Amino acid sequence: MSKQIGIIMGSKSDLPIMAEAAKILEELGVSYELTIVSAHRTPMRMIEYAENARKRGLKAIIAGAGGAAHLPGMVASLTTLPVIGVPIKSSNSIDGWDSILSILQMPGGIPVATVALNGAKNAGILGASIIGAFDARVSETLEAYKKDLKGKVEESARDVETKGWRDTLDD
Amino acid sequence: MSKQIGIIMGSKSDLPIMAEAAKILEELGVSYELTIVSAHRTPMRMIEYAENARKRGLKAIIAGAGGAAHLPGMVASLTTLPVIGVPIKSSNSIDGWDSILSILQMPGGIPVATVALNGAKNAGILGASIIGAFDARVSETLEAYKKDLKGKVEESARDVETKGWRDTLDD
Amino acid sequence: MSKQIGIIMGSKSDLPIMAEAAKILEELGVSYELTIVSAHRTPMRMIEYAENARKRGLKAIIAGAGGAAHLPGMVASLTTLPVIGVPIKSSNSIDGWDSILSILQMPGGIPVATVALNGAKNAGILGASIIGAFDARVSETLEAYKKDLKGKVEESARDVETKGWRDTLDD
Amino acid sequence: MSKQIGIIMGSKSDLPIMAEAAKILEELGVSYELTIVSAHRTPMRMIEYAENARKRGLKAIIAGAGGAAHLPGMVASLTTLPVIGVPIKSSNSIDGWDSILSILQMPGGIPVATVALNGAKNAGILGASIIGAFDARVSETLEAYKKDLKGKVEESARDVETKGWRDTLDD
Amino acid sequence: MSKQIGIIMGSKSDLPIMAEAAKILEELGVSYELTIVSAHRTPMRMIEYAENARKRGLKAIIAGAGGAAHLPGMVASLTTLPVIGVPIKSSNSIDGWDSILSILQMPGGIPVATVALNGAKNAGILGASIIGAFDARVSETLEAYKKDLKGKVEESARDVETKGWRDTLDD
Amino acid sequence: MSKQIGIIMGSKSDLPIMAEAAKILEELGVSYELTIVSAHRTPMRMIEYAENARKRGLKAIIAGAGGAAHLPGMVASLTTLPVIGVPIKSSNSIDGWDSILSILQMPGGIPVATVALNGAKNAGILGASIIGAFDARVSETLEAYKKDLKGKVEESARDVETKGWRDTLDD
Amino acid sequence: MSKQIGIIMGSKSDLPIMAEAAKILEELGVSYELTIVSAHRTPMRMIEYAENARKRGLKAIIAGAGGAAHLPGMVASLTTLPVIGVPIKSSNSIDGWDSILSILQMPGGIPVATVALNGAKNAGILGASIIGAFDARVSETLEAYKKDLKGKVEESARDVETKGWRDTLDD
Amino acid sequence: MSKQIGIIMGSKSDLPIMAEAAKILEELGVSYELTIVSAHRTPMRMIEYAENARKRGLKAIIAGAGGAAHLPGMVASLTTLPVIGVPIKSSNSIDGWDSILSILQMPGGIPVATVALNGAKNAGILGASIIGAFDARVSETLEAYKKDLKGKVEESARDVETKGWRDTLDD
Repeated sequence: MSKQIGIIMGSKSDLPIMAEAAKILEELGVSYELTIVSAHRTPMRMIEYAENARKRGLKAIIAGAGGAAHLPGMVASLTTLPVIGVPIKSSNSIDGWDSILSILQMPGGIPVATVALNGAKNAGILGASIIGAFDARVSETLEAYKKDLKGKVEESARDVETKGWRDTLDD
Repeated sequence: MSKQIGIIMGSKSDLPIMAEAAKILEELGVSYELTIVSAHRTPMRMIEYAENARKRGLKAIIAGAGGAAHLPGMVASLTTLPVIGVPIKSSNSIDGWDSILSILQMPGGIPVATVALNGAKNAGILGASIIGAFDARVSETLEAYKKDLKGKVEESARDVETKGWRDTLDD
Repeated sequence: MSKQIGIIMGSKSDLPIMAEAAKILEELGVSYELTIVSAHRTPMRMIEYAENARKRGLKAIIAGAGGAAHLPGMVASLTTLPVIGVPIKSSNSIDGWDSILSILQMPGGIPVATVALNGAKNAGILGASIIGAFDARVSETLEAYKKDLKGKVEESARDVETKGWRDTLDD
Repeated sequence: MSKQIGIIMGSKSDLPIMAEAAKILEELGVSYELTIVSAHRTPMRMIEYAENARKRGLKAIIAGAGGAAHLPGMVASLTTLPVIGVPIKSSNSIDGWDSILSILQMPGGIPVATVALNGAKNAGILGASIIGAFDARVSETLEAYKKDLKGKVEESARDVETKGWRDTLDD
Repeated sequence: MSKQIGIIMGSKSDLPIMAEAAKILEELGVSYELTIVSAHRTPMRMIEYAENARKRGLKAIIAGAGGAAHLPGMVASLTTLPVIGVPIKSSNSIDGWDSILSILQMPGGIPVATVALNGAKNAGILGASIIGAFDARVSETLEAYKKDLKGKVEESARDVETKGWRDTLDD
Repeated sequence: MSKQIGIIMGSKSDLPIMAEAAKILEELGVSYELTIVSAHRTPMRMIEYAENARKRGLKAIIAGAGGAAHLPGMVASLTTLPVIGVPIKSSNSIDGWDSILSILQMPGGIPVATVALNGAKNAGILGASIIGAFDARVSETLEAYKKDLKGKVEESARDVETKGWRDTLDD
Repeated sequence: MSKQIGIIMGSKSDLPIMAEAAKILEELGVSYELTIVSAHRTPMRMIEYAENARKRGLKAIIAGAGGAAHLPGMVASLTTLPVIGVPIKSSNSIDGWDSILSILQMPGGIPVATVALNGAKNAGILGASIIGAFDARVSETLEAYKKDLKGKVEESARDVETKGWRDTLDD
Repeated sequence: MSKQIGIIMGSKSDLPIMAEAAKILEELGVSYELTIVSAHRTPMRMIEYAENARKRGLKAIIAGAGGAAHLPGMVASLTTLPVIGVPIKSSNSIDGWDSILSILQMPGGIPVATVALNGAKNAGILGASIIGAFDARVSETLEAYKKDLKGKVEESARDVETKGWRDTLDD
């Protein structure tokens, strides 16, 4: 059966960041595939990937890249699927500004849904919310996930209110 | 019948920018509603809007705001629908950096699909691509839209190649 | 008896920074309470906190948050009390610019009294100065605190003038 | 009778911006005085102003300045009153970054309550909220002011929902 | 006979800037061709252009683009010719930072020779200097061009020294 | 008789800014010369100028330049005189950041005394203060100049205090 | 026999970065020379180097420098050869912005082919591509180099697709 | 006998940076004094220091400060001596931008001679160059110092040319 979300990245060195998208999709019960596609080193592979994504049944693509990050935007130009871009703060990046701006500031006609710097987890959740807009089971899982986030904040609030901040800090 | 995309913005002064989202959605045959909801001035209205969005049948929300732009992120915290954020360069904005960063840099768990500064048109296209992932009619319209963009570039290329750049500039 | 200052933050991970506000308030003899409230994960808790703050007797609220920091601004939209915002430089923050701008650049009508990046101590002093504007005992403590700061500078000046900079560096 | 808020600015050329603070304080029923005090051109006048502010009955000082803006921070170092800083985007300012950073990034011990670039109106509201924390009449006026802001958003929402965005844009 | 330099840009709206490259190449006696190729709107046309550039006899490619500017980098990934990138400050650009960073910060293996913002004239001169490294006639023209620049500075120096700065300003 | 301060700039187009240095030096009674010297277009003229500056009796050099501004730093490397750098915000400058950073961030051993963006007037005053450190007549003129600045602030303070801010704004 | 590319840098401390240019040129079979030339500390040596570069048979110069980096631009003003500039992030650099802007933003007439921050490897490849535009042997080596980059991406793609991302991460 | 240069800084924690100014002044044979003066914590001490500096025989003041750095500018407003400002990158500084801008961007009439971030050594050399403009002995020492810098570059050039870059790197 076909996967719902495709996760791609420009280099194996992006995997520690991009794996967060895979992890959260698993947690949210959304199927995905993950591979490496480079806009600059394998342009033909990128084109083939993007042009076939829809036919293969994908509903959205998550693309991560650092520096002058062209992968998300180029993929978006080659498919009508929603493309989620993850700016990655790589080693010679200028504090991440380069990858943010080269993913975010796309020209009219070719949007990329950009998330925070290194925000692969949020990219996964955004992918799930796209699936969830049409699939009640996924949106319920998302609802439960949000409830869980809320529960953790409430628990830490109880903690700090009961123990006081000094003891909480010492934990 | 319920609308597919909800377009909201913090103030009537954002309308000239945000109307671009409505225009392109019409062009792409995607139904939408548009209203004004302020995170800071009508927080309860915002909560009500966000919490009912899904029940009312919306599939995605486009939210535009300028300066310390909290509307897209707050709405995202209150719904499981995908939320598309449009940073707006308002009058006392610091070159748009404030609205970009306060929409883009969302914490883990609460993504906002951020588009370019003043990129309401792209927000509309992104909204349509989400619908189109599950609706072949819309994805075909998007395909045709892309073909049209391509056609216009090819036409201007022919122009400049035939007439030369001097005559093209003089047009 | 009711507390004078409420200190809140979006996550337990902000506590090491925000505890500085609590420490200095104790030192200055101003009563406070401290808890965790997240704009994005517990929006209803945030609203309840903000709307009841005045009734419970608080005179000012100190709110710290990182990244796309919406807590201080949203709380300010929900209360008439002065809200002091502390931008926090969290792990994936872009050098702190994101939290500074999303707290500082509030729209007309909803101010947040923003202090320096990670400036929770100064937030505490600012809270005390608000109390001290109406309570001579607190303003005298602040006066003494300033005298102490001055004394420490004078002492280190004497040190470096007497011992010379080489020996002072070696201490 | 003594005034509640002191408004100062470094130069007469800052008056068109800073007058917004005076206007809103009048609207909110808070008394104020307004004058010109320059940190760099009249340092002794600044010291005298800051040191006597409390004795003269002021409860807070609003100080606006552009470029390398030292007035708010220097005044804060000379009084225990809360000082609200307004960064002003002056002609040779670098997009306002210089005045924002030289007001916001104060060292430990000497806070300045910084508002948005050119945010004199918000400085006035913040001043009123400090008074209002101890004076129910002012906090009620603030409450009414917020209700009014809310009403205007709701009205423009009704407008755009009734007339549609095209006709609203044409107004 | 084949041209030496290919000038391309993403949109006809870039022509007023990019025409400067054509003008200076004419002045320096270097042959060129100029057309429109969009990375995002005509990706296949871009690939074809880049892959055939060398075979058609081009020695270097000048590519201009604004915003999230992918054209120079993508072309560089598809040819072994030197690619000169011109960042263009387009209407919704964030002061040009987006196009600069998305052209300059290319990953290891795929360089783009980036020139100043809107620096199409310098791109043309750089193209000529590449030709001139192997063609004495062109390098002599460049030498003469530099001598001319020098002459103009010397002339304006004589002017201001003779007439004085007041009269020079009044000219 | 030899002049005390040399004012140079990279291009005649910088004259409207740099003339401010000449004007204030005249006002302060310090002799100067002014000419055009380009680091990039007339490097040999620059070297000759810098190497002879001291012998010709100059006590300081004021150098203004925009963009990648190399004139102040290169002159500083060629003389032991103090060099004052004026960053100029030229047409394709990136908000002036380029000229500020390429003048300010000189390597160890070769300082440039940098003033504010377009701050030619302050460069002139700084030049005068260097002369004034060794010439009581000039330092007295500077003292009087400062008194005059102070007088103007006091006068505008009286104005706004007497007439009120509304009438002052209407002037 | 004369070398094809000259590699220079402002200080021995830049060697660990700049050696990458030498390494890749060796790998690509392009001859080079490497030495240290400082714009600010050895201006005459720099002039001599730049003025003789062409006569000595060099086809391009790679110049690396940090902070207020004047070496690439000054060399470009003294030769008609293409000059490739490498911005270096040195210790007191402001995140590299200073060296990027002082190399990139050259005035009209004097281009520098700027590569990414610390991008010495790309500078070497760009130098080779200039040689390769006129030398089929070098362009074939570049072609092979690109094929190799592509092969490595494909291999890591196979890896991650076969083993899954979890096992790849554990490698 | 009176000292020629006064070195001041806002806090003892700035001493490791500012000691570089003292060291180089000793090396260049210029007398100095060094102490701690805080604009915000000891404003009266600052005023007294600045107002007496000239009378005590100082010829220039070097002032270092971090964050919202007001010391250099405030001292400049209180003396006619040239004031050299050293922006310091302190712990909660935003990459040093705050201290650079609050020292550099002084208003018309009150210049500060700003040097590079953490550039205390260059501040010392600039101080010496001011003395040297009127004292041949000091300018000769500066000349020798420059010759020494040149010698070191030439030596490292010989090194790398003789040994090759590989062996130089291994040293």
